[in-house]
Amino acid sequence: MVERIFNFAPGPAVLPLPVLEEARDALLSLGDSGIGVMEHSHRGGPFDEVIASAEADCRELAGVGDDHAVLFLQGGASSQFYMLPANLLPEGGTADYVLTGSWSKKAAKEARLYGDVHVAASSEDRDFAYVPDVAALQFSDRPAYLHFTSNNTIVGTQWKQEPTPPDGAFLACDACSDALSRPLDISRYGIYYAGAQKNLGPSGVTLVILRRDLLERTERELPTMLRYATHAEQGSRYNTPPTFGIYVMGRIFRWLLDQGGLAEAERRNQEKAATVYDAIDEAAFYQPAADADSRSLMNVTFRTPSPDLDARFVAEAEAAGLSGLKGHRSVGGMRASIYNAFPAEGCRVLAQFMKDFAASHG
Amino acid sequence: MVERIFNFAPGPAVLPLPVLEEARDALLSLGDSGIGVMEHSHRGGPFDEVIASAEADCRELAGVGDDHAVLFLQGGASSQFYMLPANLLPEGGTADYVLTGSWSKKAAKEARLYGDVHVAASSEDRDFAYVPDVAALQFSDRPAYLHFTSNNTIVGTQWKQEPTPPDGAFLACDACSDALSRPLDISRYGIYYAGAQKNLGPSGVTLVILRRDLLERTERELPTMLRYATHAEQGSRYNTPPTFGIYVMGRIFRWLLDQGGLAEAERRNQEKAATVYDAIDEAAFYQPAADADSRSLMNVTFRTPSPDLDARFVAEAEAAGLSGLKGHRSVGGMRASIYNAFPAEGCRVLAQFMKDFAASHG
Repeated sequence: MVERIFNFAPGPAVLPLPVLEEARDALLSLGDSGIGVMEHSHRGGPFDEVIASAEADCRELAGVGDDHAVLFLQGGASSQFYMLPANLLPEGGTADYVLTGSWSKKAAKEARLYGDVHVAASSEDRDFAYVPDVAALQFSDRPAYLHFTSNNTIVGTQWKQEPTPPDGAFLACDACSDALSRPLDISRYGIYYAGAQKNLGPSGVTLVILRRDLLERTERELPTMLRYATHAEQGSRYNTPPTFGIYVMGRIFRWLLDQGGLAEAERRNQEKAATVYDAIDEAAFYQPAADADSRSLMNVTFRTPSPDLDARFVAEAEAAGLSGLKGHRSVGGMRASIYNAFPAEGCRVLAQFMKDFAASHG
Repeated sequence: MVERIFNFAPGPAVLPLPVLEEARDALLSLGDSGIGVMEHSHRGGPFDEVIASAEADCRELAGVGDDHAVLFLQGGASSQFYMLPANLLPEGGTADYVLTGSWSKKAAKEARLYGDVHVAASSEDRDFAYVPDVAALQFSDRPAYLHFTSNNTIVGTQWKQEPTPPDGAFLACDACSDALSRPLDISRYGIYYAGAQKNLGPSGVTLVILRRDLLERTERELPTMLRYATHAEQGSRYNTPPTFGIYVMGRIFRWLLDQGGLAEAERRNQEKAATVYDAIDEAAFYQPAADADSRSLMNVTFRTPSPDLDARFVAEAEAAGLSGLKGHRSVGGMRASIYNAFPAEGCRVLAQFMKDFAASHG
C-alpha cells in the first residue's frame, strides 16, 4: 500500500478516504450482487437504489424540498454556462451577471449567444482580488436572472452571502468550487449548479438543483438533451447517466451527513482555512492574493516576496509531501485548495511548512 | 470477496476483470503518486500520461492516423445526435439517415432541428428485424453525410460492412454497441462515435473519432462546448474531462491490444456469438428475433414459444447466475449482450442453460 500524500489540487481534488475505500470495494461487486458498480444497468434495481439514495441524501444535506428538482448531468459547469441561457433567457431578454473571475466571464460570454448580458458588477479593475459589495450591484430593467460565481477558484475569493436579485428575476449560481461546503438556503436560488470535481466527487458529473417552475419557461426549440425538462422528467435517466460518478457523489453526500451536515462542514472548513490564513498573516514574508474581506475558505492564495521564491516554495513543498500548491498561471504564487474532503492535518502541516520556509528564506 | 456472476446487461455492461482490478488499485493511488486516479488534476503530469496513452492506444488499436482527431467527450451518443448536425449539417443542407432501430430514429430526429433529413433506407416495415441491403440505399442529391447505426442493441442486428456514402458526402457512424469489436477501416469514416458503456468502459465518456478537415466546416454560432473544434484544439481538455472514465477506457484499449487487437476481438466475438446462436438454431423451441443475415455479434436476441415462458426463462437464468437476459420491452423475449469483455465461458453456460430449459419446458 502506497502512502497517500496531502493533495492541494484545485480540482479534480482529494476525496474522502472512507468513500474511496467503499468505491474500491464496489468496483468488482456492488454489495453482494456479483456485478461491479460500473457494470450495473442504469435501469436495474441496484442502480435505482444508488440514484434514489444520492438524490435523497442531497435533499437532506442541502435542505432541498419538492419545489426544486435535483439533476445529475454531464458536461461540467461549462455546459451549464450555455444550458442556463438556452433554456431560461427568453428571446430579447436580458440576464445580469456579476464578474468575479474568468469563470464568471466565460459564463457571461455563453449567455450572449442567447440574449443581452448586463454586468451588474465586476471586480476586474483589481484583477478580481475581491468580491463586489452586495449592496452596490446595479441591475438592468427586468432581468430574467442574476448570475454569480459563489467561489472563485483562481484568485481565491468567495461571497460571504448570496446576492439578492431584483423582483421578478431568479438567482443563478455557479457553485463549482464551494458547493455544499456550508449551510445553504436553496429556496433563494432558481438554479444552483456545480461540477463535482472539487467538493462533491469525481469529474464527469454535474449537480444541478433547479426550481421546478422554471422548467415551464423554455421557449426555444432545443435538442432533447439540452432541455432541462428532459432530464427532470426522466429522473436524470433520459440517456445513460454517468453511473459511477453518481454513485461516488451519493457516497460523499452520505459521508457529509455522517460528519454532521453542512453546519459541521462549514465549521471544519473555517478552521482549516484559518490555520493557513493565520500562517500568511503571522509572517510579513507572505502576501495574500485576495482582499481580507473576500477570502475564500476553499482556495487560499498567497505569494512570497518573489516569483523565484514562489517556485522554490512549490518545489520544496512537493518534496515534503504537500502536492499541488502552485498557483494558477494568471495569479502566480501559491494556492492551497482545501475543499470539504481535505484533511485538517494537511492544513496544519502546510502552516508549519510555511513558518519553516519563511524562517529559512526570509 | 463476492463471486462475480455472468452479466448479460446491454450497457453499462461487464468490464474486463484485469482492468477492474487495476482500477481498484489506482483508486487510492495512481502508481506510487500517493494520489488516487480520480483525485489527480486534469492538467498535471500523471493525467497527461493517462490521456496521452489512451489516445495512443486507441490509435494503434483502431489504426487511426493523423487525418483523424480522437476526442473524449461527455454526454453519450445522445449528445452526438445533435452535435453532429449542429457542427456539420450546413444551413439548408440535407443529411441522409438509415433507420435500423429506435436509436437511429432518435439521431435523425435531432438532425431535423438543423436541416433536412432524408431517409436513405429503413427496416421499420418489419420492426427493424433486419439491416437494409447496402446496395439498395436511396440517397438524396448531395447530402452532407450518410449516418448509420452499426449495431442495433434493441433488436440485435448489425451491419456486416459499412455502407458507402455518395460522392461528396462523408460517412457518420453511431458505433455505441459494437465499437472496436472488429477490424475497422477508419479512413472510410468522417465521424465514428460511441458512448463507452458497452464495449469501451464506464458510462460518462464518449469516444469520438473525427476527420480533421471536417473541423473547418462548422458555420453556425454555437456554444463553445458544442463545437468539435474546441475539443480538438484543446486535446479534450477545454474544461475538466471525465478523468476516471478516460483512464478506464485507456486501460481497456491496452487490454484489447494485449489480447491481440481487433482481429482477435472479432474472432472471439464470432465464437461467443456462434455458441449462443447455435443453441437457438438447434432447438425449434427458440425463435431468433433478427433475420439470419443481419444477426449481431454483440446482442443475441431470441424468444421461447410464449411470453410466460420468456419470463420464466429470465427468472430461472437469473437464479442460475446468468443476469440481465430480459429483452428490451419493445421486442420482448431475451437478449444476451456479449460485448468485448464478456467471457466466452458465460456463453457456453448460457447455451447449456438454454438446452436444459428447452428440454424441461419444450
